[in-house]
Amino acid sequence: RIQIFQYQVMKWLLALLVGSAVGMVGFFSNIAVENIAGFKLLLTSNLMLHNRHMEAFLLYMFCNAVLAATAAALCAYLAPAAAGSGIPEVKAYLNGVDAHSILAPSTLFVKIVGSIFGVSAGFVLGKEGPMVHTGACVASLLGQGGSRKYGLTWNWIRYFKNDLDRRDLITCGAAAGVTAAFRAPVGGVLFALEEAASWWRSALLWRTFSTTAVAAMVLRSLIEYCRSGNCGLFGKGGLIMFDVSSRVTAYTATDIAAVILLGILGGLLGALFNFLLGWILRTYGIINEKGAPFKIILTVAISLVTSCCSFGLPWLSPCTPCPPELPASRCPTIGRSGNFKKFSCPAGHYNALASLFLNTNDDAIRNLFSGGTDSEFGVTTLLTFFVAVYSLGLVTYGVAVPSGLFIPVILSGASLGRMLGKLLGSLTGLDTGLFALLGAASFLGGTMRMTVSVCVILLELTNDLLLLPLIMLVLLIAKTVADCFNKGVYDQIVRMKGLPFLEVHGDACMRSLVAGDVVSGPPITFSSVERVGSVVHTLRRTGHNGFPVLEDEPFAPAPELCGLVLRSHLIVLLQGRIFTRDRVKTGAAEVFRKLAPFDFAKAGSGNGLKVDDLGITEEEMEMYMDLHPITNRSPYTVVENMSLAKAAVLFRDLGLRHMCVVPRTPGRPPVLGILTRHDFMPQYIRGLFQNVLRE
Amino acid sequence: RIQIFQYQVMKWLLALLVGSAVGMVGFFSNIAVENIAGFKLLLTSNLMLHNRHMEAFLLYMFCNAVLAATAAALCAYLAPAAAGSGIPEVKAYLNGVDAHSILAPSTLFVKIVGSIFGVSAGFVLGKEGPMVHTGACVASLLGQGGSRKYGLTWNWIRYFKNDLDRRDLITCGAAAGVTAAFRAPVGGVLFALEEAASWWRSALLWRTFSTTAVAAMVLRSLIEYCRSGNCGLFGKGGLIMFDVSSRVTAYTATDIAAVILLGILGGLLGALFNFLLGWILRTYGIINEKGAPFKIILTVAISLVTSCCSFGLPWLSPCTPCPPELPASRCPTIGRSGNFKKFSCPAGHYNALASLFLNTNDDAIRNLFSGGTDSEFGVTTLLTFFVAVYSLGLVTYGVAVPSGLFIPVILSGASLGRMLGKLLGSLTGLDTGLFALLGAASFLGGTMRMTVSVCVILLELTNDLLLLPLIMLVLLIAKTVADCFNKGVYDQIVRMKGLPFLEVHGDACMRSLVAGDVVSGPPITFSSVERVGSVVHTLRRTGHNGFPVLEDEPFAPAPELCGLVLRSHLIVLLQGRIFTRDRVKTGAAEVFRKLAPFDFAKAGSGNGLKVDDLGITEEEMEMYMDLHPITNRSPYTVVENMSLAKAAVLFRDLGLRHMCVVPRTPGRPPVLGILTRHDFMPQYIRGLFQNVLRE
Repeated sequence: RIQIFQYQVMKWLLALLVGSAVGMVGFFSNIAVENIAGFKLLLTSNLMLHNRHMEAFLLYMFCNAVLAATAAALCAYLAPAAAGSGIPEVKAYLNGVDAHSILAPSTLFVKIVGSIFGVSAGFVLGKEGPMVHTGACVASLLGQGGSRKYGLTWNWIRYFKNDLDRRDLITCGAAAGVTAAFRAPVGGVLFALEEAASWWRSALLWRTFSTTAVAAMVLRSLIEYCRSGNCGLFGKGGLIMFDVSSRVTAYTATDIAAVILLGILGGLLGALFNFLLGWILRTYGIINEKGAPFKIILTVAISLVTSCCSFGLPWLSPCTPCPPELPASRCPTIGRSGNFKKFSCPAGHYNALASLFLNTNDDAIRNLFSGGTDSEFGVTTLLTFFVAVYSLGLVTYGVAVPSGLFIPVILSGASLGRMLGKLLGSLTGLDTGLFALLGAASFLGGTMRMTVSVCVILLELTNDLLLLPLIMLVLLIAKTVADCFNKGVYDQIVRMKGLPFLEVHGDACMRSLVAGDVVSGPPITFSSVERVGSVVHTLRRTGHNGFPVLEDEPFAPAPELCGLVLRSHLIVLLQGRIFTRDRVKTGAAEVFRKLAPFDFAKAGSGNGLKVDDLGITEEEMEMYMDLHPITNRSPYTVVENMSLAKAAVLFRDLGLRHMCVVPRTPGRPPVLGILTRHDFMPQYIRGLFQNVLRE
Repeated sequence: RIQIFQYQVMKWLLALLVGSAVGMVGFFSNIAVENIAGFKLLLTSNLMLHNRHMEAFLLYMFCNAVLAATAAALCAYLAPAAAGSGIPEVKAYLNGVDAHSILAPSTLFVKIVGSIFGVSAGFVLGKEGPMVHTGACVASLLGQGGSRKYGLTWNWIRYFKNDLDRRDLITCGAAAGVTAAFRAPVGGVLFALEEAASWWRSALLWRTFSTTAVAAMVLRSLIEYCRSGNCGLFGKGGLIMFDVSSRVTAYTATDIAAVILLGILGGLLGALFNFLLGWILRTYGIINEKGAPFKIILTVAISLVTSCCSFGLPWLSPCTPCPPELPASRCPTIGRSGNFKKFSCPAGHYNALASLFLNTNDDAIRNLFSGGTDSEFGVTTLLTFFVAVYSLGLVTYGVAVPSGLFIPVILSGASLGRMLGKLLGSLTGLDTGLFALLGAASFLGGTMRMTVSVCVILLELTNDLLLLPLIMLVLLIAKTVADCFNKGVYDQIVRMKGLPFLEVHGDACMRSLVAGDVVSGPPITFSSVERVGSVVHTLRRTGHNGFPVLEDEPFAPAPELCGLVLRSHLIVLLQGRIFTRDRVKTGAAEVFRKLAPFDFAKAGSGNGLKVDDLGITEEEMEMYMDLHPITNRSPYTVVENMSLAKAAVLFRDLGLRHMCVVPRTPGRPPVLGILTRHDFMPQYIRGLFQNVLRE
């Protein structure tokens, strides 16, 4: 009873701890980006002020290349799993894919540092996706009680060494990551619910919400602290926050038509983005496979292209006179990040393209979203920026740095939306800043196909509930249009990485198959009291994680299915050396005198014992071990003629890892095989199905 | 393919239709309450102005009693299911309890009209709970394609005649109901997710959100229209909306301590509320069982008590001079609903208690929540009001009118919170209005144990994200404290009504039992080609809804489980009269030539065919019918020695209605029994368990 209470309290403490840790990491990474990128931009614009354009360009390019190379080197040598957004990996983990190193401590380190360097390097990429991955890593690390490899472990965390609690905690971590990236606590919860988690329980809702609330509070109080100027030169910006106060309550038919048009455009361009991204990722995959140096070279090359674009394109834009109502201190901006960049213009003028390109991405988004500034950016400026950002966003994702997709998508969407707003001009009563916001929403809907979470995140960013109908409309249209062409970008990446992700709806081919069709051959089984040697040999020979246990001769008249035993539990039992000379039952009491229940707890990633490390002697090999105490006596089973589609529902909805297939008629072996996650992958079934057809 | 597209479009159209219908119903019921209650209060206060106190009291009491009697009569004679909140019933329905009349058209009608009369009668009850039920009813009605009984049917709705789509639509309806009640679209979705639905799919999130957004938009535009004075005298108020603009960003330790205290108080008093409510409901149950007249008498009695309290207690309160800064038109309020009621006070004075009692509940809440009015209500006033509202709320729920619990709980919480704020005075920097809000949150947490949805609803009501941390803190504490004592009020009512609700976590006793333990006797089975007479007799004799079908002699060497057949499908097949003289398979082609797949669609509540209506002749009784085409060939099965707790997980997570228990060893009948929802009820198992122990 006390243990249950302790467990409950710890679960909550851990969740809150994750929240505050993620909030702090989010704040730290934000401040770091602001300072590094700010310092770089300050140096460049100082040189520009003295008309040393070439030097400024070279310095800018050099800084970017060095930052990019560092990030890529970290990624390539230390933790290749840290490249990319990380959201697909987190999604797959929460679906039950236990891939190595997804949530390892080294991944966490590289994800944070690499993301800071990557964003500072001026790439068109975001820190939002990596933040979600970071949140998940932090949660995993805390949930494991630290890392055994680095000698940081707590023992009191042992209650949480199981799949369910670990997955719950990582869901909380991912939600906190979104919150840390967007300051959106409700949005974080809905992101976890809609995009990240594959299983959801009501109880999780409140825990996740607490985590995100703590993360938001920590973040807000740290930012509050920074407002007093304690966080370096550039600690004020970052974390896009767009306070639109244009309270629109009525829309005309033209407005609605414009929004619908924007939704269709967002859907089409979003689907195109996903399609092109898939193609580019395959191409990059070939380059990246050649080794770490190639990864770094690719990254630096993209960095150079990005630098040329950001620095070169503004030259195409003419200088615009500052709006007369603004004070000279606000326009042009000299030597700090902000609106109205001076670039190469004479006094009292600003370069519109430079205001977008030579800025951090957050500032560019804020510029695009800003209301009441209809004339700041012209149509040509916005079109140039849109084309550049759309293409750069495509070629940047896939290089070996932690790179989120939110920012490129928001940037292209916002510039497109604002452009449409400019083009419509006085035809619509909506602000161009609002158009930028709607454009961003439509692009997010078109690429990521998230709906409610994007909606709520944008609501929380704008703090204005009255925008809700327009945002929902544009999202609905964009998602519907894009769904006609391909799947969401994260699903696409999951599939390209070959992660065995269980979809909600099984493939159509499953409906005409039965469970018996996909079972491959007779399974490797153990007798309920098995010779040690046979267990060891089997474990060495195969990589299977679960084995059916059969009750036979002395213990039952005919062989019958006793249950399922896990590889990890077998290894713990072998390590405990609870063997007997003769083939007899030892009983559970014997086992649990030597081993505590916690010894069977699931180990963290990569911490599992190996069979070969146990050093079983020849003599011991001839002894027997009783598998009854560690056998799961009630494995979920399906009859061989069960529809495969229904078996898949059972497998997925209950979150199983193994499912036994039993025969329908007596007189056959009591278990026909074991179905695992891989047996439900459409590719596998389709391959098998062809064979069945041919036969 | 076209059908799938049609289905998708219709699903969305239907959801949007539900949203707008619920929005309109919400608006209409609100306007009706405002006008009826407003007119009643206007008459009363006009009499008071002329110092005709006794007449005013009698008129007030008479109006209330008549309204209450009408509501109770409607409820007692037309639709007893419409009494009470309706949220427990909706919850049970979404859990799979197909109770009759929960969502019938008559229930809908009584729910709307009864709720309007009940709220207008000045009872301490809300229209929020009934609104959720109304939303669910509207969704059910639209999803069934109208009511066959009342001759309103659409045929195009046939795609939706199945459990899944119906349940989805009703979830949307319930969410829209919350939105219509609180103007909180995100809150509505989270309410549906947290409290109402037992199964949740990602796809539902977006559809529910669209529904609530439409409901909110319809509601808002109708209210906008009413602002121009088109909706009668009192069309402006209603729908509590509290625009706190006191942007608190920093809290002191005292504030936090006060909030924690409030949370504990809310938890304790909330748990007490639930306990007392259970006791009162049992007492009322005895009275209500005696028949409809007793129901009406009870309702009128409570109405008289309420009238006496609302009109009598204000006499205890002294007259307070109006705050000098207010214009004479605002204080005292004469002859309209609002703040600062004059009651029996001289000019320039107001009666604080009357401002709370002689008002609609919405106005009272708005008064309590109002900020910057610290001195309006004294501690004694608030204490009197709290005690009165807490007790009246308890005795009112359970009378035969549609009555929500939100309003009584918010009223008591807000008065308690405001009182605490007054008592602390200058010790805290928080506004008393904010304290009232936090008090309401803590009471909601303490009674209903909803967390995220309450949080988000309050956020949407206040439109201020900065309050989030305080609200979350108070909710967390209140829920944790209250959970130590009893269950949430809705769970408690579900249990008291005896609805077979499947909990997320099975009872502890299940862990030591296996599936075979709870199966009762050999099941009634059919042969795969069965004599018509035997089917008809069995259907007449038993009320079972599912029967195992066995494949035997001519079709299989030994009896084996072929599948499961549903009562409703058997009746359709009987009605189709697809019989053969001999015991042969007819095949699916024969069946589907006579019957369309839609004939097997699930009928609406109470619309199912009866066996006796079919008129099977004696000759037909001797013929055979082939059950193969209508048999579900892949029923979910468990082995008899499967742990009951794991079987319960399977049953609940997959939302099954029948589960076959198969033997472990050969040589026994191929199916040992069928497990249904009732077999997983803790009461049933505990009863059975005692028998097992005795044996």
